This record gives sequence, C-alpha cells and structure tokens, in this order.
Amino acid sequence: MTSPRFDVVAIGNAIVDVLAQADDAFLAQEGMTKGSMQLMFSPEDADALYAKMGPGQEVSGGSAANTVAGIAALGGTCGFIGQVADDELGQIFAHDICSLGIHFDTPARAGDPTTARCLIFVTPDGQRTMNTFLGASQFLPESALDLDLIADGAILYLEGYLWDPEEPRAAMRAAIEVARKAGRKVAFTLSDIFCISRHGDDFRALIADGLIDILFANENELLALAETEDWQVAVDRIAPQVPTLVATRSEKGAMAVRDGKHVSVEAEPIDRVVDTTGAGDLFAAGFLHGQAQGHDLETSLRMGAICAGEIISHVGARPQCDMKALIARKLG
Amino acid sequence: MTSPRFDVVAIGNAIVDVLAQADDAFLAQEGMTKGSMQLMFSPEDADALYAKMGPGQEVSGGSAANTVAGIAALGGTCGFIGQVADDELGQIFAHDICSLGIHFDTPARAGDPTTARCLIFVTPDGQRTMNTFLGASQFLPESALDLDLIADGAILYLEGYLWDPEEPRAAMRAAIEVARKAGRKVAFTLSDIFCISRHGDDFRALIADGLIDILFANENELLALAETEDWQVAVDRIAPQVPTLVATRSEKGAMAVRDGKHVSVEAEPIDRVVDTTGAGDLFAAGFLHGQAQGHDLETSLRMGAICAGEIISHVGARPQCDMKALIARKLG
Repeated sequence: MTSPRFDVVAIGNAIVDVLAQADDAFLAQEGMTKGSMQLMFSPEDADALYAKMGPGQEVSGGSAANTVAGIAALGGTCGFIGQVADDELGQIFAHDICSLGIHFDTPARAGDPTTARCLIFVTPDGQRTMNTFLGASQFLPESALDLDLIADGAILYLEGYLWDPEEPRAAMRAAIEVARKAGRKVAFTLSDIFCISRHGDDFRALIADGLIDILFANENELLALAETEDWQVAVDRIAPQVPTLVATRSEKGAMAVRDGKHVSVEAEPIDRVVDTTGAGDLFAAGFLHGQAQGHDLETSLRMGAICAGEIISHVGARPQCDMKALIARKLG
Repeated sequence: MTSPRFDVVAIGNAIVDVLAQADDAFLAQEGMTKGSMQLMFSPEDADALYAKMGPGQEVSGGSAANTVAGIAALGGTCGFIGQVADDELGQIFAHDICSLGIHFDTPARAGDPTTARCLIFVTPDGQRTMNTFLGASQFLPESALDLDLIADGAILYLEGYLWDPEEPRAAMRAAIEVARKAGRKVAFTLSDIFCISRHGDDFRALIADGLIDILFANENELLALAETEDWQVAVDRIAPQVPTLVATRSEKGAMAVRDGKHVSVEAEPIDRVVDTTGAGDLFAAGFLHGQAQGHDLETSLRMGAICAGEIISHVGARPQCDMKALIARKLG
C-alpha cells in the first residue's frame, strides 16, 4: 500500500449557497422547519422561493465541499468530487474550490438543470434553514468518479445529503469499495435529521456492515439514527459499531468515542452567533485535520470546535480568516 | 409640478461584486493601486485575474445601486436604471435590487458580454481594491432610460464611474436634462480619483454649468477635482459652485457646505474595519435619506456616517442588518 497523496478526498453536492436574512414569521409562513434542509425538486419551485427571498450573498457551499475547503485552509491536502453544470454558478463553485488548492476535476455537465443552489434563510438568532435545489448535483454518475483520486486519499469523506439522489448514491457505494480496497478509511456525516428519516435503514446497514470508520453526527441526528430520545442510550448503541464516533452538540460542545474511550470538549466561546451555516462541516474539517496531523482525540475535537466557532461568527460556510493562525493561537 | 413618487432614482453600473481576501504583496505583484478602481477591458483579462483570486463571495454591487439599496433599507423609495446581461449574474443583480422594493425594469441585454463583475481584493487592513469588468453595463443606451421614472424621482443620483463608457455617458447627460426639466435635483458622486483624471474636465464643466445640486466626493477626489493639494483651498474652490457639497474623509469624518455654512461630523466609531467596500455609497444613502426625511445637514451627515460604519464592519457593500432600527438607536 503506497502512502496517500491526499489527507481527505470528499464526495458531495456541489452547491452555491444563496444566503439572506429572514424572520421566524417567514419560515412559519413558508412551512419551513428551522435548522433543517428541505429539497426543492423543480427549478420553478426554486425560482418561486428565490423571488420571495431578500437580497442575497452567493458563497460556494455544499457540506462535504465546505469540509475540504476548511481542511485546505488549515493546510491539509484534499480532493473533491461533485457535479456542477456548465454555467456561471458552476464556474464560481469550481473557481472557489480550485483556488484553495483542492484537486477538483469532475467535468461540468452540459445542458439543464443548472448548478445546485441552496437558498438559506438566516434568522436573527443565527440559525440557518436551507432549501436546496440539487440541479446538476443530483446527476453525479459513477462514471465521473476519479478512482485514482479516491484511492489516493487517506480518508474518503461522504455526506449523507448526497444519499438522496439515486446516481450519486450508487457512485458513493462504488467509492466506498474503492477506498476500502486501497486500505483507506471512510468517514461519513449523517448531515440532517430528515436525511435519516429517508435513509436511516441504509445508514444503519452501512454502519452494521463495518463500512464506516469515522461517523459524524449532531445530537438530533444521533438520536434519530439510534431510534431513541435518550442521549446516553444513543451513544451506547452507536459507538460500539464504529471505530470512531464524533458527535457535535452545538453550544454543549462535542464528544468522541474510540475504543470505548469517551472524550469531550466545550464549545468555543464566541461573541455573537451570526450564521450557523457550515458549523458541522467546519467542525469535521478541524477534527479530520487534527487526526491527519497525528493529534489525539481531544486536540482534534478542540480543532473542530475552533473551526466551527470561526464559521458561525460570519455569514457563509467557508472560512474568512487565516485558519492556520487561528488554530495556532487558540491551541497555544 | 407633481410630487415625485420616488425619493431617489439612480443611474449606475449594474455590477455583481466578487470579494476575496488578498495581501499587500499580491496587490504589488499585480500592479494595483490600493483603494482604487481599475477597469479590465476584456473578458480574458477578467478571467485571468479571477483565476489568481482566492475563494470569493458574490454580492450585488455597483456604486449607485449600493446607494439606492441603502436608501431602500432605510425605508426610502427608489428606482434604479442600469444594464445587466441575460445571464445568471444578471438575474442575481435584478433579484437583489427588486427584493428591496426598488423599481428596476431596465431590460436585460441579450448575448455577449456578460453582466459586469467587480473583482474586489480586501486586504487585512479592510481596504478594498477593485478591478471592474464592465461587461453589459457599459452598453446602457439612452433608449433604455425610463423617462417617466427619472421625472418621478425627487433626486436623480449619478455615479462618476459610469462616465467612462460612451453610451451611458450620453444617457446620463440626457437623464440630467429630463430631471432638470421636471424640476428635480441632480446629485453626482465623483466615484474615484482615476475617474477624475480621465473625466475631470467633464465633471468641472457639469458643475460650472450649474447642472449638479448635490456633489459627493471623498478627500482625494475633491483635491483632484479642485486641482490642489490643500484641503481648505479645495473646499473653498468647489463649495461656491454647487448648492450642496458633501465630502467624506474616512476616519476623519465628513462635512457638508450649503449656502456658505460649513457643518462637520465625526466618523462613527466601530470595533474593526473588515471591508471598506461601499463606505462612500452607503454614506450617500444615509445622507440622501436624511435629506428626503427633512433632516438638517448635520443629522443627514450623521445618518451617512452611521450607514458607512455599518457597511465597513462586514464583507460586502449592501446592508446586512436592520438599518432603520440602527439609525433610530444611534440617533437616539
């Protein structure tokens, strides 16, 4: 087994986020569940909701893409696989990810639909509520996978969100096989509680089959996966099934379990939560980079918490400061 | 003369800003003058510079457009005239301005070039350095002017930036005539020191001909317009030629002269300058809204300073908070 060229290779939705302020009344009126991700299936639905949205900011997004953007900003080496269309938003996505030094060469898809957009409503409490039009992203075919790239990543990182559309789901299953054959680790994030309602059985089977080495979940996701309302029961039920379980709990901090050893850290204190978009994604970035650097569980969790703290202090899910310096300063 | 429906109708470049972090070494290497605006004349030049740029944030921009966006956020009524192309960035620009309740119906232009983009490099000191590809924006024809809209604005607001391309320059001259015939006021911002090197004679002629009622300038622009290096000389030379002169001086505050009366205010204290993009535009917004609300010169200047203070505390040149509440709180 040769030494991998990349710390992390991720497969995920290739999305441009459109972020705008909204109030709770607007969410209620539109029937949105605060903090969740809802799919929009037609461009007409996406356009109709966009028309009701306030002035926006466009920032490249996508859960796993945010994570590799974070790792690259920390100095790690990454690759990304995801489907954009041959349009302006697709060019923006590709520019942003390549400009971070991330290896990205999934060919753009010609014709309709457009590059994926996620309309994100940020409420005054900083919480984000997402409405995703998957567009081209849902057509990532298995044939677009760069198998050499996958085999060349120490960790293959997958997002649960991409389990929804059929083609990428098949592509991810194939990618897991390639990674495992190459002796690489597979990390998986559960992404969203509604993803678990739709695909919980698939996720539980992946875990039971021993295909996941590092599982990322937030509190609600872990409860949903374990089918319980008791946090301790959830941890006790899932932790023995994965080599490493990492769970984030918003302001309650984060914890990890490996070989029966439980470690937790507090949330990073910040002045004001501006926009929680990308908090989980950047937590994963900090944690994975910590692991790649050979840090222990606790330091890796701390690095995750620091990255999450940076991302929620501004609008958008991609880092806006010198992350290497931030980590160095905070870890002391 | 009927009462106008709009507080301000603006004509300006219809631009989407792409903002990214950069360091001083990068500006030097690319031969950029910090704080200025430089034009890129070909899409190839724009693409080449974009390729060197870090990950970006896209936010609707354009100087006069930012100003009406600010006035609308403050509760004023506005119209905007500017040329976008029939592409995704054009849709973003139109969405953002319309979602603020601003009257905007300039038809999108088919075919090449694309909607204007401004590549903005933000240095660690918060200063912004701009590189504009004017794209479709430079082809705003006189025929696209909505004459009824212009006649229906208490103030016609024009940006000096738009004086560069030939078609919009002719359109602005025509618009000034329409506004004056309708008994409206004309406000003009000098925009940029390099605009004055290119078009100073035109600007001086507009002023000498009595076509400008409210002139906005920053310190360097006023010095360049007056062709002096002495601030007091510049003020004494220009103020008598315009009914209202408004000059901003960054951290030194702002001043206005009307009927020989000089009024000044201090800059708004802020925690950290994140990005100065749009500071002058939003100053104009606060000032013009103050005037529309019947406030005196000093209060109008204060409102300008408060709006400028908000915009430089985050990335992007469009307001991100409840501006009405901010003004109410700060004015007490």
